Amino acid sequence: MLPQWIIEKKRDGKELSSEEISSFIERFTSGEIPEYQMSALAMAIYFRGMTPRETAALTKAMLYSGDVVDTSSIKLPKIDKHSTGGIGDKVSLILAPLVAACGLAVPMLSGRGLGITGGTLDKLESIPGYRTDLSEAEFINVIADCGCSITGQTGSLAPADKKLYALRDVTATVPSIPLIVASIMSKKLAEGIDSLVLDVKFGSGAFMKTQEEARKLALAMIDVGHEMGKSVSALLTDMNQPLGRTAGNSLEVIESVETLQGKGPSDLVEITMELAVAMLLLGKVESDSMRARARLDTAISSGAALKVFERMVELQGGSVEALRNYRKLPAAQIQHSVIAGHSGFVTKVDAEGIGRACIVLGAGRLKTDDKVDFAVGVSELCKIGDRVDKGSKLLTIHANDRSRLEEAQKLIGESVIIEENKKAPGSLIVERLGDQ
Amino acid sequence: MLPQWIIEKKRDGKELSSEEISSFIERFTSGEIPEYQMSALAMAIYFRGMTPRETAALTKAMLYSGDVVDTSSIKLPKIDKHSTGGIGDKVSLILAPLVAACGLAVPMLSGRGLGITGGTLDKLESIPGYRTDLSEAEFINVIADCGCSITGQTGSLAPADKKLYALRDVTATVPSIPLIVASIMSKKLAEGIDSLVLDVKFGSGAFMKTQEEARKLALAMIDVGHEMGKSVSALLTDMNQPLGRTAGNSLEVIESVETLQGKGPSDLVEITMELAVAMLLLGKVESDSMRARARLDTAISSGAALKVFERMVELQGGSVEALRNYRKLPAAQIQHSVIAGHSGFVTKVDAEGIGRACIVLGAGRLKTDDKVDFAVGVSELCKIGDRVDKGSKLLTIHANDRSRLEEAQKLIGESVIIEENKKAPGSLIVERLGDQ
Repeated sequence: MLPQWIIEKKRDGKELSSEEISSFIERFTSGEIPEYQMSALAMAIYFRGMTPRETAALTKAMLYSGDVVDTSSIKLPKIDKHSTGGIGDKVSLILAPLVAACGLAVPMLSGRGLGITGGTLDKLESIPGYRTDLSEAEFINVIADCGCSITGQTGSLAPADKKLYALRDVTATVPSIPLIVASIMSKKLAEGIDSLVLDVKFGSGAFMKTQEEARKLALAMIDVGHEMGKSVSALLTDMNQPLGRTAGNSLEVIESVETLQGKGPSDLVEITMELAVAMLLLGKVESDSMRARARLDTAISSGAALKVFERMVELQGGSVEALRNYRKLPAAQIQHSVIAGHSGFVTKVDAEGIGRACIVLGAGRLKTDDKVDFAVGVSELCKIGDRVDKGSKLLTIHANDRSRLEEAQKLIGESVIIEENKKAPGSLIVERLGDQ
Repeated sequence: MLPQWIIEKKRDGKELSSEEISSFIERFTSGEIPEYQMSALAMAIYFRGMTPRETAALTKAMLYSGDVVDTSSIKLPKIDKHSTGGIGDKVSLILAPLVAACGLAVPMLSGRGLGITGGTLDKLESIPGYRTDLSEAEFINVIADCGCSITGQTGSLAPADKKLYALRDVTATVPSIPLIVASIMSKKLAEGIDSLVLDVKFGSGAFMKTQEEARKLALAMIDVGHEMGKSVSALLTDMNQPLGRTAGNSLEVIESVETLQGKGPSDLVEITMELAVAMLLLGKVESDSMRARARLDTAISSGAALKVFERMVELQGGSVEALRNYRKLPAAQIQHSVIAGHSGFVTKVDAEGIGRACIVLGAGRLKTDDKVDFAVGVSELCKIGDRVDKGSKLLTIHANDRSRLEEAQKLIGESVIIEENKKAPGSLIVERLGDQ
């Protein structure tokens, strides 16, 4: 079938067969179908959408465009979490060792930050020596040893997704739910997992701006997971203010270690624990959420979860010493306190604004080849609902450059709002969807 | 501005500025913007449409992507006709010399047939020696001498259209009114004309299947013409049965000559005369349609129009002898009469079916590099409303191959319907739009 006939069929709102989708993706991956036909199809999908069956076929086609990690040697239930990304989202660093400590295997292939959203690999790379370029054999060995591994995707996984994602980025076809779902799910299923927990964020610091959009995306991912025989559950979570009290790579590593030590900020703990409970239930190591939560609390209080994290870092070449003596982590030259101009209550800490400030400081990337400064960011972030007095600290900016500090200060000044009347922060976890 | 931002703006249904459109087309033509961004924009335009201002900006950008014929040396009003194409449509061959004989200049750059629609250049090339590859200087000289010239587009005219058309063809973005309008109008305006008459066809043998679609296309072309300071008028005409009594290249040349001799079939004469009247009015050589019609009739009856045609053919290297002695035109080896199986009235002569039969015989192209057989086609075509007796001839098939003849017979058998009760043919010209 000529590629243009498939494009035309989708353009006219008809449902594509699984064969049409898989043939198109196969021929696109091999280079037989040129990029201009793929981008026209992507735009037609943007306008016409896809049925759950079509989205699953697209996901499958992208998944089988490359290798799937062979996790058959690991006998534990294999599960992962995917977050759609936010500001201060260091959940993966805590969650993977935490659930591994409770008897699950977590083969986590993660990504780098782009735009205001931070990346798990960047955070871990701020630990001196930590390798994110494990081979598949090394990846399996780390999981077999400590129960989890967080590393980068190898080139042989879902090559269709890499090619298509790069194309979508320059053809205004990124914000299409079936394309997003196929991209995420093909990469996650290439990890060889049995089940998946999703953290779908919405708000100013997230890709999805409204709860409604986030729900649509979550339901589409759950549908595809089910079509492919996987258990999937999803939380819809608020990303209007940053998660936790830090944003920036090494600063988030410190906060993650502290959370694994039982000293985490309440919002970060809440979301991590909810996701962990969902994982224990999906992985069937516990049958009810009360018992799951108790087991997770024990993994923290006993130090077992932290031990798994340290072991993973060690196995991946990272400095465990730096996790105990933070002065061995990258630190910024300038620590600047932002002070409250007047007394009142914090009513807004805009996630997008804080994210932009972190980009300005150098903590993230605007383009994929930008270099990241691991040391910079913000810490001791105030939270919505906090009572502050005139002159008290709202947060600390960590910078390596005066002019960048000034620009970041300006962005932060516009992002943090103090008002006379207290405004309760909204719920962090607003909905649970999928398998429970 | 990044190309993806322009694509995104159109994707989201916003109006593009003229600068955004011209910059995109310029950079696409130069190769700076890759085809995959152009095809994504074309698909977004397919879904979102364009305002008359945007369509005019696109037309302008495509027009000025190349040269415009310098017709300044020709002092007569310069006018052309464009038809959206149909079966048996040989109007250009008659119309150009006819209005040239009445004092207008017709610089007609024409195209080849593709699909069931015939092409003016193919028809003229069936005249031995006729050249359709004139240089711009030769083109101007022919017009200066006899008042009209019909030749092919040179490569330097509207290169953006050539590049975009080839891309649309393989990305399912052909049937988009703003893209069709910009393609037609940029090529026509590159001829250096003052005004334009459009024959927008609808029906089974036309690109537009309904009158409503044809009206939309006509109005969009008129709008763009006006935005660019040109007078434009349009006829909406019926293309459910072929025009005239022949289809096929040399057969249509013969019918054209006969029409110029005053012996044309009534439908072909009607449409040609209506278009010619519109041209004389737009070109302001006559101020009312009665007088225009009288002048045109005289140009036929005096032989002046035929003389212009013969002169044009001669100047372009064609054999005038062949126009007087048809045996010097390409002729098919087999002439096969199709006979009525029963008596009654012709109620249908399906243009699309006849067009397909001509393709099967070899008179047209399915792909741009297919070779055309000038000799084959159909002649003596019956018309809707004709009374036929059992055994009387419905048409003659001209073929050069027995198996192709058989296939064509089958298609024609399904296309011509004879019923007991007479059905009056619908009006040929159903609407007049634009400048009158």
